Amino acid sequence: MQEVLVKDLFAGEQIAEDVTVALTGWVKTVRGSKRVGFIELSDGTTIKNAQIVMQSDLDNYDDLKKLPLSSTIRVEGTVVYTPDAKQPFEIHAEKITLEGASDNDYPLQKKKHSYEYLRTMAHLRPRTNTFYAVFRIRSLAAFAIHQYLQEHGFTYVNTPIITSSDSEGAGEMFRVTTLDMNNLPKTDDGKVDDSKDFFKKETNLTVSGQLPVESFALALRNVYTFGPTFRAENSHTSRHASEFWMIEPEMAFADLDDTIAVSEELLKYVVSYLLDHAKDELDFLNGAVDEHLLDRLHNTIDEKFARITYTQAIEELKKAPVKFDVPVSWGLDLQAEHERYLCEQVYKRPTFLTDYPREIKAFYMRDNDDGKTVAAADLLVPQIGELIGGSQREERQAQLAEKIKEYNLPPEEYAWYLELRKYGETVHSGFGIGFERLLMYVTGMENIRDVIPYPRTPGNAEF
Amino acid sequence: MQEVLVKDLFAGEQIAEDVTVALTGWVKTVRGSKRVGFIELSDGTTIKNAQIVMQSDLDNYDDLKKLPLSSTIRVEGTVVYTPDAKQPFEIHAEKITLEGASDNDYPLQKKKHSYEYLRTMAHLRPRTNTFYAVFRIRSLAAFAIHQYLQEHGFTYVNTPIITSSDSEGAGEMFRVTTLDMNNLPKTDDGKVDDSKDFFKKETNLTVSGQLPVESFALALRNVYTFGPTFRAENSHTSRHASEFWMIEPEMAFADLDDTIAVSEELLKYVVSYLLDHAKDELDFLNGAVDEHLLDRLHNTIDEKFARITYTQAIEELKKAPVKFDVPVSWGLDLQAEHERYLCEQVYKRPTFLTDYPREIKAFYMRDNDDGKTVAAADLLVPQIGELIGGSQREERQAQLAEKIKEYNLPPEEYAWYLELRKYGETVHSGFGIGFERLLMYVTGMENIRDVIPYPRTPGNAEF
Repeated sequence: MQEVLVKDLFAGEQIAEDVTVALTGWVKTVRGSKRVGFIELSDGTTIKNAQIVMQSDLDNYDDLKKLPLSSTIRVEGTVVYTPDAKQPFEIHAEKITLEGASDNDYPLQKKKHSYEYLRTMAHLRPRTNTFYAVFRIRSLAAFAIHQYLQEHGFTYVNTPIITSSDSEGAGEMFRVTTLDMNNLPKTDDGKVDDSKDFFKKETNLTVSGQLPVESFALALRNVYTFGPTFRAENSHTSRHASEFWMIEPEMAFADLDDTIAVSEELLKYVVSYLLDHAKDELDFLNGAVDEHLLDRLHNTIDEKFARITYTQAIEELKKAPVKFDVPVSWGLDLQAEHERYLCEQVYKRPTFLTDYPREIKAFYMRDNDDGKTVAAADLLVPQIGELIGGSQREERQAQLAEKIKEYNLPPEEYAWYLELRKYGETVHSGFGIGFERLLMYVTGMENIRDVIPYPRTPGNAEF
Repeated sequence: MQEVLVKDLFAGEQIAEDVTVALTGWVKTVRGSKRVGFIELSDGTTIKNAQIVMQSDLDNYDDLKKLPLSSTIRVEGTVVYTPDAKQPFEIHAEKITLEGASDNDYPLQKKKHSYEYLRTMAHLRPRTNTFYAVFRIRSLAAFAIHQYLQEHGFTYVNTPIITSSDSEGAGEMFRVTTLDMNNLPKTDDGKVDDSKDFFKKETNLTVSGQLPVESFALALRNVYTFGPTFRAENSHTSRHASEFWMIEPEMAFADLDDTIAVSEELLKYVVSYLLDHAKDELDFLNGAVDEHLLDRLHNTIDEKFARITYTQAIEELKKAPVKFDVPVSWGLDLQAEHERYLCEQVYKRPTFLTDYPREIKAFYMRDNDDGKTVAAADLLVPQIGELIGGSQREERQAQLAEKIKEYNLPPEEYAWYLELRKYGETVHSGFGIGFERLLMYVTGMENIRDVIPYPRTPGNAEF
């Protein structure tokens, strides 16, 4: 018997109407009268369900009518095309086998549940339409990113997760240890003896792969990371998670204009890819979650992104006819409210801000000649605020050594990073995309916890 | 002026011989006589170098002749095609600008260095041909895996890195904490108070994404993880690292035969992809690292993999005309020596072993009806031994609950995993590939430290 997939039937696979086929899946809804019943069946291959029609002459018709939702069944029947109906085909069941009955207390009944409630069952929420759509999009967006970068000659580099450096001297880190916490080895002065730990020193979870990946850009030219990063910050906002994924492209022989061009092209590529490959999911989310989603995505690919300097942005904000919670002056580290005002109200599209004050940016960014700003470019997008942060890196050995000193970073930890310049100063640049921020942008979901399979936030590491 | 890339010139890009072009890159070798000199230039876009010819009438010719290796330069000149010579083209320099001189103590001079030595400079070794090739192949293999799985309808799922469960009750784990180790909060009985930790409980780094990804297979049908996993084992072999990447596909409505079919097809796809896309790199490694590499790869795609049961394998090993360090009897957890003997000497190709004794396999594998074995299938490959481990999962709620008890696993930690069965028992299967093992197989590198950008092993977390 031919096994068929629901996605292939929706894609127009033609099956003769007198041939018996089989499909397996899960019961999403079931209803039945005395004579005829209907099951909406998900087989996981698409967000759409197949309509199964069952007549009362099926042996187990009375049991089927009462099937608990999420039961696993196998259906044998014929495909009947219904081009004039809402769904383009139905399956007329000849036999339905129960493979695994769900219990009657299945918690995801038909009624709408809050996202908060669904987070308490992260193992079951992929069975809802919303999370099916979100996690399909997460996968497709990840692949689109890989595909764009690979097609453009970028080499994927897996930078380390466990690190003995602190990357930027910024951001709280998680410690990684195998020491017995109830019986810690101590040094003579009573401190924990890190030299007895697994790596013979203190180690932490990475906050960014950028510094280690730079060494690869200086050999393979265009490279990128795509992996998990961590922040041990006790923040309880809808935009911050303790564990999240970042994409960090890095390019040798590339300046700030190049990173701006590549990040715009990459973002447009991902959005186009989703419009092509996740049409059903985006349509669903546009209907159920965010009615402006499709407009925003089309705007993203249709418009050239705006580009202004940080200094111009400050001027715009100062003359804004709105009151911000955090008052605006040159030197301010912009907040989401400012970022969103600029791209939503002023420019009405994704907007690059360049040349930030050096004091509010990381030590590795290249100083501009004005002595006040660095060659940085952040991309602000509607709904989210900062989505991408990029910069030209300080490739001049002397200046970099100076900045390491200025930022009070331990020079011995950065010796290898300086050596990348010692053995051939090379203009290079790169940027980082917070993958979950991107997913919030392309799904309309407003809480980062709802675009991560098993979100980790302060106090929460279930499953 | 037209900027050109070395890879495009090797790919046959045609430039008129009277047009001046520019290229930027790093000096790999330099030599010069009184009248003419040659620079081999890498621009990072291919493992091959462009030959730069410079005449003594260049202004800075005397300086160029003495350029330290790894210096960054910009070359302007004309492309001269030399179809009868070893390299298909040369660049006749009109002007060479030094962008960043390397220091004279550049440690990767022309002579051959040991891999051990190069590991001490993980930030510079991508500049060698061997590591250039290895890390290009790492990237291409990763992409091939994504591409195969996406084309076959698999959804990429990022399972959590920080976990409060211990996945299989097997394997040492790294603890993740933000507690101040020098001032630990204690409970009344003097133990560390884990409830004061960041996640309000003890958390660790994941050893496998399989259990969390199963929940996605039971909604999206075909899914996979591809991310870092960790083992805090104090092992100092050439095959074990503390941090490594795994690919874990999981399929609903799939039995053991399906996982065997998919893992064979996936492995062949990756090898074919590399033969198509990494020809230069594989040729280089076949010459410099492992002269059997290309033979092995062709054998992998040409031959149908062998398939025998564990019990048959034990019979083969017992009659083997060689003495193993670990003696063979039914129930033995096979060692690399046994695995390699089977696939190298007996079957001479990748070989699936199925139906292992239940005692040496994980609790989640489905019991066979014989009461002694489980529906597991490992793939053994020449040079490496075990490359892939797969199984059909125990989908029967009652049997799974029983095994959780039998393996002394804390039932409250596995409640959510049992619920996946409670709400619809579904036949499902999956497998895991150690990505670095795969890379050793497709590069010929014999130490796992040499296929990881920044390897982490006991006592080693530099950079």
